[in-house]
Amino acid sequence: MDGPDTTSAEHRGLDDETVSTLRLAMLPGIGPRTLTALIDCFGSPGRVLAAEASRLAAVPGVGPKLIHTIRTASDHVDTDSILRWCQTHDCDLLCQGRDGYPRPLEDLHDAPPILFAHGTMTRADELAVAIVGTRHATAYGTRQADRLAYGLAKAGVTVVSGLARGIDAAAHEGALSAGGRTIAVLGGGLGQIYPPEHVGLADAIAADGAVISEYPPYAKPRGGMFPQRNRIIAALALATLVIEAPDRSGSLITARQAGELGRDVLALPGPVTSRASRGTNQLIRDGATLVQTVDDILESLGPMARSVSTEDGHEVRNPAELKLNEVERTVLESIDASSTLIDQVIARSGLPAHQVMATISVLEIRHLIRRQSGHYVCRI
Amino acid sequence: MDGPDTTSAEHRGLDDETVSTLRLAMLPGIGPRTLTALIDCFGSPGRVLAAEASRLAAVPGVGPKLIHTIRTASDHVDTDSILRWCQTHDCDLLCQGRDGYPRPLEDLHDAPPILFAHGTMTRADELAVAIVGTRHATAYGTRQADRLAYGLAKAGVTVVSGLARGIDAAAHEGALSAGGRTIAVLGGGLGQIYPPEHVGLADAIAADGAVISEYPPYAKPRGGMFPQRNRIIAALALATLVIEAPDRSGSLITARQAGELGRDVLALPGPVTSRASRGTNQLIRDGATLVQTVDDILESLGPMARSVSTEDGHEVRNPAELKLNEVERTVLESIDASSTLIDQVIARSGLPAHQVMATISVLEIRHLIRRQSGHYVCRI
Repeated sequence: MDGPDTTSAEHRGLDDETVSTLRLAMLPGIGPRTLTALIDCFGSPGRVLAAEASRLAAVPGVGPKLIHTIRTASDHVDTDSILRWCQTHDCDLLCQGRDGYPRPLEDLHDAPPILFAHGTMTRADELAVAIVGTRHATAYGTRQADRLAYGLAKAGVTVVSGLARGIDAAAHEGALSAGGRTIAVLGGGLGQIYPPEHVGLADAIAADGAVISEYPPYAKPRGGMFPQRNRIIAALALATLVIEAPDRSGSLITARQAGELGRDVLALPGPVTSRASRGTNQLIRDGATLVQTVDDILESLGPMARSVSTEDGHEVRNPAELKLNEVERTVLESIDASSTLIDQVIARSGLPAHQVMATISVLEIRHLIRRQSGHYVCRI
Repeated sequence: MDGPDTTSAEHRGLDDETVSTLRLAMLPGIGPRTLTALIDCFGSPGRVLAAEASRLAAVPGVGPKLIHTIRTASDHVDTDSILRWCQTHDCDLLCQGRDGYPRPLEDLHDAPPILFAHGTMTRADELAVAIVGTRHATAYGTRQADRLAYGLAKAGVTVVSGLARGIDAAAHEGALSAGGRTIAVLGGGLGQIYPPEHVGLADAIAADGAVISEYPPYAKPRGGMFPQRNRIIAALALATLVIEAPDRSGSLITARQAGELGRDVLALPGPVTSRASRGTNQLIRDGATLVQTVDDILESLGPMARSVSTEDGHEVRNPAELKLNEVERTVLESIDASSTLIDQVIARSGLPAHQVMATISVLEIRHLIRRQSGHYVCRI
């Protein structure tokens, strides 16, 4: 039991700004965009909560009702009980714009201001692929979700999904069985794992990755929250791969959101006789990239905006690098983003010249380096 | 038995030029391109055969050996026995550039100068789709080949294939069971049906379509003749649909040839676990259009260079017209290629104005007509 003079926030080492963000984000009737406008205007969540009504009214989209809600925030949100839950359940709060918040979510025009997280998210998780699909998966679909998630995780890619039955669960399990990282994004609060039989799976995911949600811990998942949740799945990953989806499946919404965010949309083909493959086949017909193998997926992902460090200490700029063998990787790491003399590559790599020359050709074919003249190469 | 004074050619009502073309085309060491050059130079096949050696030598690609062959043509080719075979077996000879020769083959740079044909080819056969695939088809593949061929034939599209085991046979059978037209292009002579168990199928095809070959009747099919034959399949059809093909399947060659001829390349997706779908899935990954239904196929085919008359007397410019119901067709046929006043469409069609207006919207969405202003429409 907490004494009267200590709050849960202090126990978790949470600062005032995080608590203020939490209070604002949980207020009824305030969306991510209005929240961002308010914080931009006043400089910090704490100042928003302390602001006078007249000044709040100057912010676009803020009306008398919302002003009243903000001014009486503590009546609406019991931050203390949320913080107590987070403390008891080892749950972190990640605030937009601050350390620990996943950078790819900043691409969303309605990024969640706060995320509840079990487990940890790392910089390496920026090298992620979302694997989604129908809850009513066939044996073909679950087998493929498991196989591809396993292969991606083995290659060092984080697998993002939604903890649902069917494809989602198979994808998380595939990544876990490879000893890799996986992230589950929930459509309800962390205290309301849905479906209930996935409580154990969620714990396993949190141990080697993260289970995250933008909803307060006790929020029950409702239908409307899933499309909303899907935007986070799409944004966290470089590409969204749909494994099986009948017509009008929610995973087709995730795919559309991924496309709108400029992320790659990938789909696994299936027999035209399978209802569960009708949406994926149509997605391919509409322009999604057909993938059959892990290599297909890695090839589809172009160079990343920011390089990331994998768990084994390599700096990855292009996911296609994950397919390289030791020699290829050594040669690649001996080449700079600026012009590098081939003689210098030979010297740095410590490999025989003929092997370096042959490997340079391989790396060129894989679009990882560019030959600039007879004597110079550079990384792409 | 023929009497000594009549030739088989006379019996079949064949003219001298056809016989001369046959003689030239069957000569060893003379390809379609050289043959075309010779005929272009001398004006007719008969004049080529009568030409002097010095004048033959002036044609590019014609050397001393070929000149000798041409000058002694009757020693090399027993046209009379070929013609006798054609007479006995009700086989027509179709010469390039003359009536009855399939016009789409003129798009080939090496169009066969002569074709042997059982059955008949009609102008409506220009509205054709090739359905090809592996001989080692799965139940999924043969079922789909049959289903799509049935649907296309029912819609009035001629189905072209190669009479092989597996996908080819299923495609021909599907078209026949719809009471539609189908054409088989052989990789050997018409007297050497391969595989032998398809003799009955070939007869059924000839009764409602055609079995054709560029090889003399007794030519045994050899490996090298099939890729050669595939170019004819690709050229005859507006699009080539590959149903199932493992890596390095011959049907992928047909698909490539179709693409090179500017024809559409379509492929049916399949499970990534099926070896027989690996080539088709890869084809889609490389840019072929994924199709699941007959409508998908008809939509893929753009407007045709020349309109054709279907067996039921409609003039078709765009294969998508085959999907129309009676009302839609009536409205479409009331619209000209030039601007047509909507009031005139209503008058011509004899339908209520509101129905015509609604139908015009449908036709617009299907890219069959264009609205030019509030009052005018035109066919595309």
